[in-house]
Amino acid sequence: MHSEFNIIKKYFTRPTPQADLGVGDDAALLKVADGHQLVVSTDMSVVDTHFFADAAPYDIGWKSLAVNISDIAAMGANPKWATLSIALPAIDETWLAEFSRGFFACADAFHIDLIGGDTTRGPLNISVTIMGEVPTGKAIKRSGAKVGDDIWVSGQLGSAALSLAHIEGKITLKNDALQANIHALYKPAPRVDLGLKLRDIATSCIDISDGLLADLGHILTASNCGATIDLEKIPCIDYLKNDLDNPQFQEFVLAGGDDYELCFTAPVSKRKEIELIGKHQHILLTCIAATHMDISLQVMYKDTALNLNSKGFDHFG
Amino acid sequence: MHSEFNIIKKYFTRPTPQADLGVGDDAALLKVADGHQLVVSTDMSVVDTHFFADAAPYDIGWKSLAVNISDIAAMGANPKWATLSIALPAIDETWLAEFSRGFFACADAFHIDLIGGDTTRGPLNISVTIMGEVPTGKAIKRSGAKVGDDIWVSGQLGSAALSLAHIEGKITLKNDALQANIHALYKPAPRVDLGLKLRDIATSCIDISDGLLADLGHILTASNCGATIDLEKIPCIDYLKNDLDNPQFQEFVLAGGDDYELCFTAPVSKRKEIELIGKHQHILLTCIAATHMDISLQVMYKDTALNLNSKGFDHFG
Repeated sequence: MHSEFNIIKKYFTRPTPQADLGVGDDAALLKVADGHQLVVSTDMSVVDTHFFADAAPYDIGWKSLAVNISDIAAMGANPKWATLSIALPAIDETWLAEFSRGFFACADAFHIDLIGGDTTRGPLNISVTIMGEVPTGKAIKRSGAKVGDDIWVSGQLGSAALSLAHIEGKITLKNDALQANIHALYKPAPRVDLGLKLRDIATSCIDISDGLLADLGHILTASNCGATIDLEKIPCIDYLKNDLDNPQFQEFVLAGGDDYELCFTAPVSKRKEIELIGKHQHILLTCIAATHMDISLQVMYKDTALNLNSKGFDHFG
Repeated sequence: MHSEFNIIKKYFTRPTPQADLGVGDDAALLKVADGHQLVVSTDMSVVDTHFFADAAPYDIGWKSLAVNISDIAAMGANPKWATLSIALPAIDETWLAEFSRGFFACADAFHIDLIGGDTTRGPLNISVTIMGEVPTGKAIKRSGAKVGDDIWVSGQLGSAALSLAHIEGKITLKNDALQANIHALYKPAPRVDLGLKLRDIATSCIDISDGLLADLGHILTASNCGATIDLEKIPCIDYLKNDLDNPQFQEFVLAGGDDYELCFTAPVSKRKEIELIGKHQHILLTCIAATHMDISLQVMYKDTALNLNSKGFDHFG
């Protein structure tokens, strides 16, 4: 049998060049750079709620860290450190090796040190807390949107929801290219570089984890304004775009969630600058609407307001 | 039905005077004091592993934070901020109200701000990450014990394990006073004030969560020395002390865990100072042995070395 300590050592102990003391004591020690604030976020991933029990452990490892990084990206901050707590029904070395490989692949891609954690017996549950830095006062909050600001979205929305529907057998993706799209669901790439560039440009920002309507809704509520979106302006793959009459497809695009793109607002005067960032970073950036004073969120499709009874994925909704 | 957002707002949103931005954005923002390091630790509590499904939610709330605070205390640091992720099988408002009441009672007692979290559906699982501050270079690590240092223990050991055995029906505590002792298991009081005072005195420190042998073992391994302990010198309640021939009682005291007392080492020259701290803080502080060069950990009882096949609680052992 393996002891908890040996598991930690074998799979989760790596050098932590950005910390003064990493895994192996009661707590980790780290130094936040002078003139910076610490940025902290946490996300819990649970089997059957966030991923299927038979999902590839590499993908679970990658995604459990990536969704946390996405929150730091949305603040315009630089992710640096993470802790990982994991409950496992039993020790499965093959699973653990693959999980940690996926976790550290993501950690390496975004220069993050794993500085602490906990392993215990229980139904599979992965809890990550991520910490990063931002120059004091420079974080992009949800509450800063001004009336008349452009509303922007990165990448394409609805692909993760489309993939999930395919896996669940609700739809069937026949095209090979479309099936390749499924990777978007398993290996989201948080928009850290984009968030950093938006720091002095965006007035508000959020990552789209619960769906565009829910997440843009948070910005609008926090900023005390509203928006009217044209469904056809929302960036999505042609497969969805070509059949937007389909209510299921409307839902994928508006409320699908799990895309981990950024939704942000910025003054009209910043359009050129934003387009240049997209060009440099090879990221599609689309202006989908403008904020208005009327505190409501409406979606227009072919000159008719959609009945928005799907308001984003809610684990208890 | 309640949405995830409403739950967070109702039960887990409180003012966060020690943070620049608390619950409600993608991430929290906080400032670590100049000349200080951030101290970070995380612990996951799982139903049936760390607590019984029918345990009082108030106690679960208190303890899930307290065990984390204990890790910060063991570093000689000052706990200030925490995040809480919780998986729940269903929304039970009575349970949540009591859980959050216990959690915040502990947070208030130790001046900790809850700055972020996540709620999701799943088997009951509580994951807390705690952050604190320590003047740079002043944290008490496990690795600093010197040969010849005194080994100290705070409070009394074995009470939590004794209580657990009673609850599990392995033993029966008849005396009312002893049954009152059960509260030690449910409502541990982390030794924050003691840890802060030990900062310039102790050469190493750990909190006793897995049992004295396991935790002292971590100090000795990290510090490259050994110790020989006299079982009868280990502080414990009379009920245990009076029947140390009982192998079960030996195990409670040596390997019971869950006591959240501190075990630390200090130079012999600091004895008076340490005794004074105990007196001022009304905490029993007992010198149980001295470290020696021979890298081994032995327990003597009535002039015979005990056979240490019980090496502390290990969730996967």
